[in-house]
Amino acid sequence: MNFELIRELQQPGDGRIVLLVLDGLGGLPGRDGHTALEAARTPNLDQLAANGLCGLHESVAPGVTPGSGPGHLALFGYDPIRYQVGRGVLSALGVDFELAPGDVAARGNFCTVDPEGRVTDRRAGRISTEKNSKLCDRLRGIHLPGVELFVQTVKEHRFLLVLRGDGLGAEVGDTDPEQTGRKPLRPEARSEKARRTAQLVSRFLEQAAGILVDHHPANMVLLRGFASRPSWPSLAEVCGVRAAAIASYPMYRGVARLVGMALLSSGATLREKLDTAREHWDRYDFFFLHVKHGDSAGEDGDFEAKVEVIEKVDRELPRLLALDPAVVVVTGDHSTPASLRYHSWHPVPVLFWSRRCRPDRVRQFGERACLSGGLGPRFPAPELMALALANAGRLGKFGA
Amino acid sequence: MNFELIRELQQPGDGRIVLLVLDGLGGLPGRDGHTALEAARTPNLDQLAANGLCGLHESVAPGVTPGSGPGHLALFGYDPIRYQVGRGVLSALGVDFELAPGDVAARGNFCTVDPEGRVTDRRAGRISTEKNSKLCDRLRGIHLPGVELFVQTVKEHRFLLVLRGDGLGAEVGDTDPEQTGRKPLRPEARSEKARRTAQLVSRFLEQAAGILVDHHPANMVLLRGFASRPSWPSLAEVCGVRAAAIASYPMYRGVARLVGMALLSSGATLREKLDTAREHWDRYDFFFLHVKHGDSAGEDGDFEAKVEVIEKVDRELPRLLALDPAVVVVTGDHSTPASLRYHSWHPVPVLFWSRRCRPDRVRQFGERACLSGGLGPRFPAPELMALALANAGRLGKFGA
Repeated sequence: MNFELIRELQQPGDGRIVLLVLDGLGGLPGRDGHTALEAARTPNLDQLAANGLCGLHESVAPGVTPGSGPGHLALFGYDPIRYQVGRGVLSALGVDFELAPGDVAARGNFCTVDPEGRVTDRRAGRISTEKNSKLCDRLRGIHLPGVELFVQTVKEHRFLLVLRGDGLGAEVGDTDPEQTGRKPLRPEARSEKARRTAQLVSRFLEQAAGILVDHHPANMVLLRGFASRPSWPSLAEVCGVRAAAIASYPMYRGVARLVGMALLSSGATLREKLDTAREHWDRYDFFFLHVKHGDSAGEDGDFEAKVEVIEKVDRELPRLLALDPAVVVVTGDHSTPASLRYHSWHPVPVLFWSRRCRPDRVRQFGERACLSGGLGPRFPAPELMALALANAGRLGKFGA
Repeated sequence: MNFELIRELQQPGDGRIVLLVLDGLGGLPGRDGHTALEAARTPNLDQLAANGLCGLHESVAPGVTPGSGPGHLALFGYDPIRYQVGRGVLSALGVDFELAPGDVAARGNFCTVDPEGRVTDRRAGRISTEKNSKLCDRLRGIHLPGVELFVQTVKEHRFLLVLRGDGLGAEVGDTDPEQTGRKPLRPEARSEKARRTAQLVSRFLEQAAGILVDHHPANMVLLRGFASRPSWPSLAEVCGVRAAAIASYPMYRGVARLVGMALLSSGATLREKLDTAREHWDRYDFFFLHVKHGDSAGEDGDFEAKVEVIEKVDRELPRLLALDPAVVVVTGDHSTPASLRYHSWHPVPVLFWSRRCRPDRVRQFGERACLSGGLGPRFPAPELMALALANAGRLGKFGA
């Protein structure tokens, strides 16, 4: 999406847009040669497809497997190559930590070092999350002059480190040597502004080494991906919409927050999310609803579980349409074929419906059916947002 | 179209290209679920489609509704976001005023001001075009030192102002305050070069105020969109073609002139336009023929009238083919669905024929049929020009 152009053309409108993301929606042939989406009984989605238009999107670039962050940013209209987030920020998003402007965040690993200080296991034997939590409590005892310190457990050996204070800079090099047999690197300042920050990180590491010395295998930490929260133009600024996210998992809430969405509290089921949307219907123009379990089923290699998630979504579709949205987009942030048990680069099916759209001839929502749809078989995901705005009557004419 | 690349690869050829633009061609389902193009009986176009290839283009960007100017520029191969024209220039194009390089043009409105000089009606109650014409006669009496002045009626309250002389600059701010209750703004110079121009415009406005004082409601003028004719590379320079436009409406003639096309005089019907093309067949390589009435019918919400325009064009197709062109492109500059009564963002059907093209499987020229065509369901309109050149034998090989 061309931000400058869209910002210039956006106009007020009444129509609401609902973006329903079924995480990891796309798949590969499994049972009887059908993908999970093709195998699922989806009469409501198929009906909507018949009245709307279909296609398949690519989030980042052809052949590129998107992470969840880039996958969602693309659906929100942001070019994920231009709008990149440091790993530290992603870690913060992942645990629902609200980064303030100027905070410096890093991804931390507990690791094992030998008596000479050389790393022998970069993941400290994947200690338990419980053990991690206890060690993080200890690390929180570290005091650094002039900055507030946050240490938060993520999972197993992973934690989040955040420094908050004036005049910090995130251009600090990783301390993770990326291989065993080497000592952790010194945190190196990569800019004048990051000099003091690097010194503070050094002091943190010295004290952490002292605190952890008797906690083998987690007797040291490695830090990487120092980053600050980016200040991107918000959806309100670019598109003129008040946007709200209804998502249970921190990662998706975090990405939504980066583009200025309000975060609405809701129950975990799609039905509860739709109830939440209805309660807030007048206060927002754009609703992002996130359904996680298709991705988890894909990562578990559980084809039938993925089919079930999709069929469950199909049964809730009438409740979504009862909200009377101007535009409905049903898609995924990436494909997660059960046969690969992981995110993949395969184009992701899209169902786009609006009263003002020009229906194509697709009558079933499935990967192969979408190939002949009006959106095209491989289009850049960020185009969806501009199309949604247009169909909601929220984009004016370009030129006379 | 990549100008640098095409300029490098263009080569002389004999084949003629005909671009037939049916203004506002694309539509939405109306009668029996068909669009106007789908509903129209078009045996000749369908036959050509069967021997050619089809698709749908987007002129500016996905979701963006093109004005007529950008819509045509895109068909001529020019990226309409890069090649933008100021409103003053568009006004000049719209009344067939031939801008010389260095002329400064502005869009003018007659308006109403109260005794304190505050604008009470930015459109002077939409005075008649006749009244406008009389007032423009009076304004032509204004003399400014060292510049020639043109004041030309457009329609109702709108007129065109052009200053011609040495050393003028178009970077002058609007005087239109954009809302009532405020005084007109002073014309502000936005560059050193525009300083004298802004002073001249000030003097014009002072004298205009004196002349119009007794002509309530049209007792003042507002100016906006100061602009000079851009100096763009011509089609001859970029593509090596001698191009001619056969269009009745000033706007389209004007856009054609901006890319260096010759303007051929012709009757208003397509048959007369084809006769004109035949007369000039040997003198030009590229013919742009414009048919306006499909757009007008769409804007009137008259589905059946749009069907009729298309059927009429279909009946003239054999006369077009009798000219023995190397390439025929039939498309629109944008969609104008009768149900929306306005330009829209929906992709525009394209029929591309040449003896050297690789026919696809589309056998009917219609929006839905075009979806599965060889050109794709949503391709950037500026690509058409390069394809036309290639099929006319006018593009050489890239690299060894």
